[in-house]
Amino acid sequence: MNDLQALRPDDTQPTPLYLQLARNLEAAIHAGQWKAEQAMPSERNLSELLGISRVTARKALEVLFEQGLIRRNQGSGTFITPRLEQPLSRLSGFSEMLRLKGFVPGSQWLEREITPPTHEELIRLGLSPNDKVARLKRLRKADDTVMAIEMSTLPASIIPKPQAVGDSLYEYLDGIGKPIVRALQHIQAINASDEFAALVGIAPGTAMLLMTRVGYLEDNTPIEVTDTYCRNDYYDFVAELRR
Amino acid sequence: MNDLQALRPDDTQPTPLYLQLARNLEAAIHAGQWKAEQAMPSERNLSELLGISRVTARKALEVLFEQGLIRRNQGSGTFITPRLEQPLSRLSGFSEMLRLKGFVPGSQWLEREITPPTHEELIRLGLSPNDKVARLKRLRKADDTVMAIEMSTLPASIIPKPQAVGDSLYEYLDGIGKPIVRALQHIQAINASDEFAALVGIAPGTAMLLMTRVGYLEDNTPIEVTDTYCRNDYYDFVAELRR
Repeated sequence: MNDLQALRPDDTQPTPLYLQLARNLEAAIHAGQWKAEQAMPSERNLSELLGISRVTARKALEVLFEQGLIRRNQGSGTFITPRLEQPLSRLSGFSEMLRLKGFVPGSQWLEREITPPTHEELIRLGLSPNDKVARLKRLRKADDTVMAIEMSTLPASIIPKPQAVGDSLYEYLDGIGKPIVRALQHIQAINASDEFAALVGIAPGTAMLLMTRVGYLEDNTPIEVTDTYCRNDYYDFVAELRR
Repeated sequence: MNDLQALRPDDTQPTPLYLQLARNLEAAIHAGQWKAEQAMPSERNLSELLGISRVTARKALEVLFEQGLIRRNQGSGTFITPRLEQPLSRLSGFSEMLRLKGFVPGSQWLEREITPPTHEELIRLGLSPNDKVARLKRLRKADDTVMAIEMSTLPASIIPKPQAVGDSLYEYLDGIGKPIVRALQHIQAINASDEFAALVGIAPGTAMLLMTRVGYLEDNTPIEVTDTYCRNDYYDFVAELRR
Protein backbone atom coordinates (compact mmCIF):
# COMPACT_ATOMS: atom_id res chain seq x y z
CA MET A 1 0.00 0.00 0.00
CA ASN A 2 3.03 2.31 0.41
CA ASP A 3 3.24 2.57 -3.38
CA LEU A 4 -0.10 4.36 -3.32
CA GLN A 5 1.39 7.32 -1.43
CA ALA A 6 3.30 8.24 -4.61
CA LEU A 7 -0.09 8.91 -6.21
CA ARG A 8 -0.97 11.70 -3.77
CA PRO A 9 -1.76 14.97 -5.61
CA ASP A 10 0.10 18.13 -4.60
CA ASP A 11 -2.26 20.90 -3.45
CA THR A 12 0.39 23.60 -3.90
CA GLN A 13 0.19 23.03 -7.68
CA PRO A 14 -2.25 25.02 -9.86
CA THR A 15 -3.43 21.84 -11.71
CA PRO A 16 -6.74 20.57 -10.26
CA LEU A 17 -6.19 17.72 -7.77
CA TYR A 18 -8.34 15.20 -9.71
CA LEU A 19 -6.27 15.76 -12.87
CA GLN A 20 -3.02 15.30 -10.95
CA LEU A 21 -4.36 12.07 -9.42
CA ALA A 22 -5.61 10.85 -12.83
CA ARG A 23 -2.16 11.43 -14.35
CA ASN A 24 -0.40 9.69 -11.43
CA LEU A 25 -2.76 6.69 -11.68
CA GLU A 26 -2.25 6.57 -15.45
CA ALA A 27 1.55 6.51 -15.00
CA ALA A 28 1.25 3.73 -12.38
CA ILE A 29 -0.95 1.63 -14.73
CA HIS A 30 1.54 2.06 -17.59
CA ALA A 31 4.38 1.13 -15.24
CA GLY A 32 2.60 -2.20 -14.64
CA GLN A 33 1.65 -1.57 -10.98
CA TRP A 34 -1.52 -3.67 -11.46
CA LYS A 35 -2.15 -6.84 -13.53
CA ALA A 36 -4.74 -7.29 -16.27
CA GLU A 37 -8.25 -7.44 -14.81
CA GLN A 38 -6.91 -6.78 -11.28
CA ALA A 39 -9.08 -4.53 -9.08
CA MET A 40 -8.05 -0.89 -8.70
CA PRO A 41 -8.20 0.81 -5.27
CA SER A 42 -11.77 2.05 -4.86
CA GLU A 43 -12.89 5.67 -4.66
CA ARG A 44 -13.16 5.22 -0.89
CA ASN A 45 -9.68 3.63 -0.54
CA LEU A 46 -8.07 6.38 -2.58
CA SER A 47 -9.88 9.05 -0.60
CA GLU A 48 -8.86 7.59 2.80
CA LEU A 49 -5.27 6.63 1.94
CA LEU A 50 -4.40 9.85 0.14
CA GLY A 51 -6.37 12.24 2.32
CA ILE A 52 -8.41 13.62 -0.58
CA SER A 53 -12.17 14.07 -1.03
CA ARG A 54 -14.38 11.30 -2.47
CA VAL A 55 -15.33 13.74 -5.24
CA THR A 56 -11.66 14.18 -6.27
CA ALA A 57 -11.11 10.39 -6.28
CA ARG A 58 -14.31 9.85 -8.29
CA LYS A 59 -13.42 12.47 -10.91
CA ALA A 60 -9.91 11.00 -11.31
CA LEU A 61 -11.32 7.49 -11.88
CA GLU A 62 -13.81 9.01 -14.34
CA VAL A 63 -10.89 10.35 -16.42
CA LEU A 64 -9.24 6.88 -16.50
CA PHE A 65 -12.56 5.33 -17.48
CA GLU A 66 -12.97 7.80 -20.38
CA GLN A 67 -9.47 6.87 -21.55
CA GLY A 68 -10.31 3.16 -21.51
CA LEU A 69 -7.66 2.35 -18.90
CA ILE A 70 -10.15 0.91 -16.43
CA ARG A 71 -13.49 -0.83 -16.61
CA ARG A 72 -16.33 -0.98 -14.10
CA ASN A 73 -17.97 -4.29 -13.26
CA GLN A 74 -21.42 -3.82 -11.76
CA GLY A 75 -21.20 -4.14 -7.97
CA SER A 76 -17.64 -5.51 -7.94
CA GLY A 77 -15.51 -2.42 -8.46
CA THR A 78 -13.10 -1.12 -11.03
CA PHE A 79 -10.63 -3.23 -13.00
CA ILE A 80 -7.49 -2.59 -15.01
CA THR A 81 -7.99 -3.06 -18.75
CA PRO A 82 -5.04 -4.90 -20.34
CA ARG A 83 -4.54 -2.15 -22.88
CA LEU A 84 -1.89 -2.82 -25.50
CA GLU A 85 -0.49 0.27 -27.17
CA GLN A 86 0.78 -0.71 -30.61
CA PRO A 87 2.74 1.77 -32.69
CA LEU A 88 1.68 1.48 -36.33
CA SER A 89 5.20 1.83 -37.67
CA ARG A 90 7.06 -0.96 -35.92
CA LEU A 91 6.63 -4.67 -36.62
CA SER A 92 6.68 -5.65 -32.97
CA GLY A 93 5.88 -8.97 -31.35
CA PHE A 94 2.71 -9.36 -29.30
CA SER A 95 4.62 -11.12 -26.49
CA GLU A 96 7.33 -8.47 -26.32
CA MET A 97 4.76 -5.62 -26.12
CA LEU A 98 2.80 -7.34 -23.34
CA ARG A 99 5.88 -8.05 -21.23
CA LEU A 100 6.79 -4.35 -21.41
CA LYS A 101 3.38 -3.53 -19.91
CA GLY A 102 3.85 -5.96 -17.02
CA PHE A 103 1.42 -8.59 -18.41
CA VAL A 104 2.19 -12.29 -19.02
CA PRO A 105 1.64 -13.16 -22.73
CA GLY A 106 0.10 -16.48 -23.78
CA SER A 107 -1.32 -18.33 -26.82
CA GLN A 108 -3.90 -21.06 -27.38
CA TRP A 109 -3.85 -22.91 -30.72
CA LEU A 110 -7.20 -23.47 -32.44
CA GLU A 111 -5.90 -24.78 -35.79
CA ARG A 112 -2.58 -25.64 -37.47
CA GLU A 113 -3.15 -27.34 -40.84
CA ILE A 114 -2.38 -27.50 -44.58
CA THR A 115 -5.32 -26.39 -46.82
CA PRO A 116 -6.04 -24.81 -50.24
CA PRO A 117 -5.73 -20.97 -50.39
CA THR A 118 -8.67 -18.58 -50.82
CA HIS A 119 -8.80 -16.17 -53.87
CA GLU A 120 -7.49 -13.37 -51.71
CA GLU A 121 -4.58 -15.42 -50.33
CA LEU A 122 -3.75 -16.70 -53.79
CA ILE A 123 -3.40 -13.10 -55.04
CA ARG A 124 -1.64 -11.69 -51.99
CA LEU A 125 0.88 -14.51 -51.70
CA GLY A 126 1.39 -14.77 -55.47
CA LEU A 127 0.51 -18.49 -55.50
CA SER A 128 -0.59 -20.81 -58.32
CA PRO A 129 -4.10 -22.26 -58.00
CA ASN A 130 -2.70 -25.71 -57.11
CA ASP A 131 -0.42 -24.49 -54.31
CA LYS A 132 -1.32 -25.23 -50.70
CA VAL A 133 -1.03 -23.04 -47.61
CA ALA A 134 -0.33 -23.55 -43.91
CA ARG A 135 -3.19 -22.11 -41.85
CA LEU A 136 -2.53 -21.11 -38.22
CA LYS A 137 -5.34 -19.96 -35.92
CA ARG A 138 -4.93 -19.05 -32.27
CA LEU A 139 -6.10 -16.96 -29.34
CA ARG A 140 -3.67 -14.38 -27.98
CA LYS A 141 -3.80 -13.79 -24.22
CA ALA A 142 -2.63 -11.37 -21.53
CA ASP A 143 -2.66 -12.92 -18.03
CA ASP A 144 -5.33 -15.44 -19.25
CA THR A 145 -7.54 -12.70 -20.75
CA VAL A 146 -8.21 -13.31 -24.47
CA MET A 147 -7.20 -10.15 -26.33
CA ALA A 148 -7.38 -11.24 -29.97
CA ILE A 149 -7.94 -14.02 -32.49
CA GLU A 150 -5.08 -14.38 -34.95
CA MET A 151 -5.24 -16.27 -38.26
CA SER A 152 -2.09 -16.56 -40.36
CA THR A 153 -1.65 -18.10 -43.80
CA LEU A 154 1.77 -18.89 -45.29
CA PRO A 155 2.78 -20.90 -48.38
CA ALA A 156 3.04 -24.61 -47.47
CA SER A 157 6.42 -24.50 -49.25
CA ILE A 158 7.65 -22.29 -46.36
CA ILE A 159 5.81 -24.07 -43.53
CA PRO A 160 5.25 -27.71 -44.63
CA LYS A 161 4.62 -28.81 -41.01
CA PRO A 162 2.47 -26.19 -39.24
CA GLN A 163 2.55 -28.24 -36.00
CA ALA A 164 6.23 -27.28 -35.75
CA VAL A 165 5.39 -23.59 -35.24
CA GLY A 166 5.62 -22.62 -31.57
CA ASP A 167 4.42 -19.60 -29.60
CA SER A 168 6.09 -17.10 -31.92
CA LEU A 169 5.59 -17.40 -35.69
CA TYR A 170 8.21 -14.70 -36.33
CA GLU A 171 10.81 -16.51 -34.18
CA TYR A 172 10.05 -19.72 -36.13
CA LEU A 173 10.59 -17.92 -39.45
CA ASP A 174 13.82 -16.37 -38.15
CA GLY A 175 14.94 -19.90 -37.19
CA ILE A 176 14.42 -21.34 -40.69
CA GLY A 177 16.21 -18.38 -42.30
CA LYS A 178 13.06 -16.70 -43.65
CA PRO A 179 12.71 -13.59 -41.47
CA ILE A 180 9.88 -11.17 -42.25
CA VAL A 181 11.42 -7.70 -42.31
CA ARG A 182 8.54 -5.54 -43.54
CA ALA A 183 4.74 -5.67 -43.56
CA LEU A 184 1.79 -3.73 -44.96
CA GLN A 185 -1.12 -3.54 -42.56
CA HIS A 186 -4.72 -2.58 -43.36
CA ILE A 187 -7.13 -1.63 -40.57
CA GLN A 188 -10.87 -2.17 -40.59
CA ALA A 189 -13.73 -2.15 -38.09
CA ILE A 190 -16.00 -5.23 -38.09
CA ASN A 191 -18.98 -6.48 -36.13
CA ALA A 192 -18.02 -9.60 -34.14
CA SER A 193 -19.56 -12.81 -35.50
CA ASP A 194 -21.21 -15.17 -32.98
CA GLU A 195 -18.13 -17.42 -33.16
CA PHE A 196 -15.58 -14.65 -32.55
CA ALA A 197 -17.70 -12.97 -29.88
CA ALA A 198 -17.79 -16.26 -27.93
CA LEU A 199 -14.01 -16.79 -28.37
CA VAL A 200 -13.04 -13.37 -26.96
CA GLY A 201 -15.91 -12.99 -24.47
CA ILE A 202 -17.91 -10.07 -25.89
CA ALA A 203 -21.50 -9.66 -27.14
CA PRO A 204 -22.13 -10.68 -30.79
CA GLY A 205 -22.07 -7.62 -33.07
CA THR A 206 -19.66 -5.64 -30.85
CA ALA A 207 -17.24 -3.60 -32.97
CA MET A 208 -13.75 -5.16 -33.23
CA LEU A 209 -10.61 -4.03 -35.04
CA LEU A 210 -9.45 -6.26 -37.87
CA MET A 211 -5.79 -5.85 -38.79
CA THR A 212 -4.84 -7.51 -42.07
CA ARG A 213 -1.09 -7.81 -42.46
CA VAL A 214 0.98 -8.98 -45.42
CA GLY A 215 4.55 -9.78 -44.40
CA TYR A 216 7.53 -9.65 -46.77
CA LEU A 217 10.97 -11.26 -46.87
CA GLU A 218 14.07 -9.12 -47.47
CA ASP A 219 13.77 -9.86 -51.25
CA ASN A 220 10.15 -8.49 -51.20
CA THR A 221 8.44 -11.88 -51.55
CA PRO A 222 5.13 -11.83 -49.61
CA ILE A 223 5.02 -14.98 -47.41
CA GLU A 224 2.49 -14.12 -44.68
CA VAL A 225 -1.13 -12.98 -44.61
CA THR A 226 -2.39 -12.51 -41.04
CA ASP A 227 -5.86 -11.41 -39.93
CA THR A 228 -5.93 -10.30 -36.30
CA TYR A 229 -9.35 -9.69 -34.74
CA CYS A 230 -8.63 -7.45 -31.76
CA ARG A 231 -10.84 -6.67 -28.77
CA ASN A 232 -11.25 -2.97 -29.24
CA ASP A 233 -11.17 -2.23 -25.50
CA TYR A 234 -7.77 -3.93 -25.17
CA TYR A 235 -5.90 -2.51 -28.15
CA ASP A 236 -4.76 1.03 -28.69
CA PHE A 237 -3.27 1.43 -32.17
CA VAL A 238 -1.26 4.61 -32.47
CA ALA A 239 0.25 6.28 -35.50
CA GLU A 240 2.44 9.37 -35.65
CA LEU A 241 1.66 11.48 -38.72
CA ARG A 242 3.81 14.18 -40.26
CA ARG A 243 3.03 16.68 -42.92
CA MET B 1 -16.45 2.14 -74.12
CA ASN B 2 -13.08 2.04 -75.89
CA ASP B 3 -11.34 2.33 -72.52
CA LEU B 4 -12.76 -1.05 -71.60
CA GLN B 5 -10.65 -2.78 -74.27
CA ALA B 6 -7.57 -2.06 -72.14
CA LEU B 7 -9.07 -4.39 -69.52
CA ARG B 8 -9.00 -7.44 -71.81
CA PRO B 9 -7.02 -10.32 -70.26
CA ASP B 10 -4.18 -11.89 -72.26
CA ASP B 11 -4.74 -15.63 -72.82
CA THR B 12 -1.09 -16.24 -73.73
CA GLN B 13 -0.18 -15.46 -70.06
CA PRO B 14 -0.03 -18.23 -67.43
CA THR B 15 -2.04 -16.15 -64.88
CA PRO B 16 -5.73 -17.20 -64.84
CA LEU B 17 -7.89 -14.86 -66.98
CA TYR B 18 -10.19 -13.87 -64.10
CA LEU B 19 -7.20 -12.75 -62.00
CA GLN B 20 -5.80 -10.70 -64.88
CA LEU B 21 -9.20 -9.06 -65.41
CA ALA B 22 -9.57 -8.41 -61.67
CA ARG B 23 -6.16 -6.70 -61.58
CA ASN B 24 -6.96 -4.62 -64.68
CA LEU B 25 -10.30 -3.53 -63.21
CA GLU B 26 -8.61 -2.71 -59.90
CA ALA B 27 -6.05 -0.51 -61.69
CA ALA B 28 -8.83 1.25 -63.65
CA ILE B 29 -10.77 1.95 -60.41
CA HIS B 30 -7.66 3.36 -58.72
CA ALA B 31 -6.98 5.50 -61.80
CA GLY B 32 -10.41 7.10 -61.29
CA GLN B 33 -12.10 5.61 -64.40
CA TRP B 34 -15.44 5.52 -62.52
CA LYS B 35 -16.97 7.95 -59.98
CA ALA B 36 -18.14 7.12 -56.45
CA GLU B 37 -21.31 5.03 -56.52
CA GLN B 38 -21.25 4.88 -60.35
CA ALA B 39 -22.35 1.56 -61.87
CA MET B 40 -19.63 -0.84 -63.06
CA PRO B 41 -20.00 -2.66 -66.39
CA SER B 42 -22.05 -5.78 -65.64
CA GLU B 43 -20.85 -9.38 -65.88
CA ARG B 44 -22.70 -9.62 -69.21
CA ASN B 45 -21.21 -6.34 -70.60
CA LEU B 46 -17.69 -7.40 -69.63
CA SER B 47 -18.19 -10.83 -71.18
CA GLU B 48 -19.55 -9.45 -74.49
CA LEU B 49 -17.18 -6.50 -74.88
CA LEU B 50 -14.01 -8.38 -73.94
CA GLY B 51 -14.86 -11.71 -75.57
CA ILE B 52 -14.50 -13.67 -72.32
CA SER B 53 -16.82 -16.14 -70.60
CA ARG B 54 -19.48 -15.03 -68.11
CA VAL B 55 -17.76 -17.24 -65.50
CA THR B 56 -14.46 -15.35 -65.95
CA ALA B 57 -16.24 -11.98 -65.65
CA ARG B 58 -18.15 -13.18 -62.56
CA LYS B 59 -15.02 -14.46 -60.81
CA ALA B 60 -13.17 -11.21 -61.52
CA LEU B 61 -16.02 -9.12 -60.02
CA GLU B 62 -16.04 -11.51 -57.06
CA VAL B 63 -12.38 -10.66 -56.36
CA LEU B 64 -13.14 -6.89 -56.44
CA PHE B 65 -16.10 -7.46 -54.13
CA GLU B 66 -13.91 -9.35 -51.63
CA GLN B 67 -11.46 -6.44 -51.69
CA GLY B 68 -14.24 -3.93 -50.94
CA LEU B 69 -13.73 -2.04 -54.22
CA ILE B 70 -17.28 -2.61 -55.41
CA ARG B 71 -20.66 -3.12 -53.79
CA ARG B 72 -23.73 -4.92 -55.05
CA ASN B 73 -27.15 -3.30 -54.80
CA GLN B 74 -29.96 -5.85 -54.97
CA GLY B 75 -31.39 -5.90 -58.49
CA SER B 76 -29.58 -2.74 -59.66
CA GLY B 77 -26.07 -3.95 -60.37
CA THR B 78 -22.59 -3.31 -59.05
CA PHE B 79 -21.28 0.06 -57.86
CA ILE B 80 -17.88 1.60 -57.23
CA THR B 81 -17.14 2.10 -53.55
CA PRO B 82 -15.48 5.49 -52.89
CA ARG B 83 -12.60 3.84 -51.08
CA LEU B 84 -10.07 6.21 -49.56
CA GLU B 85 -6.66 4.71 -48.94
CA GLN B 86 -5.02 6.66 -46.13
CA PRO B 87 -1.39 6.04 -45.25
CA LEU B 88 -0.97 6.12 -41.47
CA SER B 89 2.29 8.03 -41.58
CA ARG B 90 1.38 11.14 -43.55
CA LEU B 91 -0.80 13.95 -42.27
CA SER B 92 -2.69 14.36 -45.52
CA GLY B 93 -5.80 16.36 -46.27
CA PHE B 94 -9.08 14.61 -46.95
CA SER B 95 -9.76 16.79 -50.01
CA GLU B 96 -6.32 16.19 -51.50
CA MET B 97 -6.63 12.39 -51.10
CA LEU B 98 -10.07 12.31 -52.71
CA ARG B 99 -9.02 14.42 -55.71
CA LEU B 100 -6.14 11.98 -56.34
CA LYS B 101 -8.73 9.18 -56.58
CA GLY B 102 -10.85 11.07 -59.10
CA PHE B 103 -13.63 11.93 -56.59
CA VAL B 104 -14.96 15.44 -55.84
CA PRO B 105 -14.51 16.26 -52.12
CA GLY B 106 -17.16 18.17 -50.16
CA SER B 107 -18.12 19.21 -46.61
CA GLN B 108 -21.36 19.98 -44.80
CA TRP B 109 -21.15 21.92 -41.51
CA LEU B 110 -23.27 20.66 -38.61
CA GLU B 111 -21.84 22.86 -35.87
CA ARG B 112 -19.31 25.69 -35.44
CA GLU B 113 -19.42 27.15 -31.91
CA ILE B 114 -17.56 28.18 -28.75
CA THR B 115 -18.24 25.87 -25.74
CA PRO B 116 -16.57 24.61 -22.52
CA PRO B 117 -14.09 21.70 -23.00
CA THR B 118 -14.69 18.12 -21.80
CA HIS B 119 -12.29 16.48 -19.27
CA GLU B 120 -10.50 14.71 -22.09
CA GLU B 121 -10.08 17.88 -24.19
CA LEU B 122 -8.92 19.82 -21.14
CA ILE B 123 -6.14 17.27 -20.57
CA ARG B 124 -5.17 16.76 -24.20
CA LEU B 125 -5.07 20.46 -25.05
CA GLY B 126 -3.45 21.43 -21.73
CA LEU B 127 -6.22 23.94 -20.91
CA SER B 128 -7.32 25.52 -17.63
CA PRO B 129 -10.85 24.64 -16.45
CA ASN B 130 -12.13 28.14 -17.34
CA ASP B 131 -10.80 28.10 -20.92
CA LYS B 132 -13.23 27.73 -23.81
CA VAL B 133 -12.90 25.73 -27.03
CA ALA B 134 -14.06 26.09 -30.63
CA ARG B 135 -16.07 23.02 -31.64
CA LEU B 136 -16.37 22.14 -35.34
CA LYS B 137 -18.60 19.31 -36.54
CA ARG B 138 -19.15 18.38 -40.18
CA LEU B 139 -19.87 15.64 -42.69
CA ARG B 140 -17.10 14.79 -45.18
CA LYS B 141 -18.27 13.80 -48.64
CA ALA B 142 -17.02 12.21 -51.86
CA ASP B 143 -19.23 13.03 -54.86
CA ASP B 144 -22.18 13.66 -52.46
CA THR B 145 -21.64 10.34 -50.62
CA VAL B 146 -21.12 10.89 -46.86
CA MET B 147 -17.86 9.14 -45.91
CA ALA B 148 -17.27 10.37 -42.36
CA ILE B 149 -18.35 12.60 -39.48
CA GLU B 150 -15.56 14.84 -38.23
CA MET B 151 -15.53 16.69 -34.89
CA SER B 152 -12.62 18.99 -34.11
CA THR B 153 -11.90 20.91 -30.93
CA LEU B 154 -9.32 23.71 -30.71
CA PRO B 155 -8.62 26.30 -28.01
CA ALA B 156 -10.89 29.33 -28.47
CA SER B 157 -7.70 31.42 -28.11
CA ILE B 158 -6.61 29.98 -31.50
CA ILE B 159 -10.04 30.01 -33.18
CA PRO B 160 -12.12 32.77 -31.52
CA LYS B 161 -14.57 32.84 -34.48
CA PRO B 162 -15.29 29.26 -35.61
CA GLN B 163 -17.60 30.55 -38.37
CA ALA B 164 -14.47 31.88 -40.11
CA VAL B 165 -13.14 28.34 -40.73
CA GLY B 166 -13.76 27.26 -44.30
CA ASP B 167 -13.64 23.89 -46.03
CA SER B 168 -10.13 23.10 -44.85
CA LEU B 169 -9.25 23.52 -41.16
CA TYR B 170 -5.56 22.95 -41.89
CA GLU B 171 -5.52 25.64 -44.59
CA TYR B 172 -7.20 28.02 -42.13
CA LEU B 173 -4.53 27.28 -39.50
CA ASP B 174 -1.77 27.75 -42.10
CA GLY B 175 -3.35 31.11 -42.95
CA ILE B 176 -3.26 32.41 -39.36
CA GLY B 177 0.35 31.27 -38.92
CA LYS B 178 -0.46 28.25 -36.71
CA PRO B 179 0.25 25.28 -38.99
CA ILE B 180 -0.11 21.79 -37.51
CA VAL B 181 3.03 19.87 -38.46
CA ARG B 182 2.65 16.60 -36.52
CA ALA B 183 -0.19 14.53 -35.09
CA LEU B 184 -0.69 11.45 -32.93
CA GLN B 185 -3.58 9.32 -34.08
CA HIS B 186 -5.35 6.57 -32.13
CA ILE B 187 -7.59 4.06 -33.90
CA GLN B 188 -10.62 2.34 -32.43
CA ALA B 189 -13.62 0.37 -33.67
CA ILE B 190 -17.04 1.53 -32.43
CA ASN B 191 -20.66 0.57 -33.00
CA ALA B 192 -22.50 3.40 -34.79
CA SER B 193 -24.97 5.26 -32.55
CA ASP B 194 -28.46 5.91 -33.95
CA GLU B 195 -27.47 9.53 -34.65
CA PHE B 196 -24.25 8.69 -36.51
CA ALA B 197 -25.82 5.79 -38.41
CA ALA B 198 -28.49 8.15 -39.75
CA LEU B 199 -25.90 10.82 -40.68
CA VAL B 200 -23.72 8.44 -42.76
CA GLY B 201 -26.52 6.17 -44.03
CA ILE B 202 -25.77 2.82 -42.35
CA ALA B 203 -27.67 0.58 -39.92
CA PRO B 204 -27.37 1.50 -36.20
CA GLY B 205 -24.71 -0.68 -34.52
CA THR B 206 -22.65 -1.14 -37.71
CA ALA B 207 -18.90 -1.13 -36.91
CA MET B 208 -17.17 2.17 -37.77
CA LEU B 209 -13.57 3.30 -37.40
CA LEU B 210 -12.96 6.11 -34.95
CA MET B 211 -9.72 8.01 -35.50
CA THR B 212 -8.76 10.31 -32.64
CA ARG B 213 -6.07 12.77 -33.64
CA VAL B 214 -4.13 15.26 -31.54
CA GLY B 215 -2.37 17.83 -33.73
CA TYR B 216 0.74 19.76 -32.66
CA LEU B 217 2.35 23.05 -33.65
CA GLU B 218 6.06 23.20 -34.53
CA ASP B 219 6.83 24.07 -30.85
CA ASN B 220 4.96 20.89 -29.72
CA THR B 221 1.89 22.69 -28.32
CA PRO B 222 -1.20 20.48 -28.88
CA ILE B 223 -3.91 22.68 -30.47
CA GLU B 224 -6.27 20.20 -32.14
CA VAL B 225 -8.27 17.17 -31.00
CA THR B 226 -10.25 15.64 -33.87
CA ASP B 227 -12.54 12.60 -33.73
CA THR B 228 -13.32 11.22 -37.19
CA TYR B 229 -16.04 8.55 -37.42
CA CYS B 230 -15.33 6.79 -40.73
CA ARG B 231 -17.60 4.54 -42.76
CA ASN B 232 -15.58 1.37 -42.64
CA ASP B 233 -16.47 0.36 -46.21
CA TYR B 234 -15.12 3.65 -47.56
CA TYR B 235 -11.83 3.95 -45.68
CA ASP B 236 -8.75 1.82 -46.06
CA PHE B 237 -6.16 2.77 -43.46
CA VAL B 238 -2.75 1.41 -44.32
CA ALA B 239 0.46 1.30 -42.32
CA GLU B 240 3.87 0.09 -43.37
CA LEU B 241 5.65 -1.68 -40.53
CA ARG B 242 9.36 -2.42 -40.24
CA ARG B 243 11.19 -4.55 -37.78
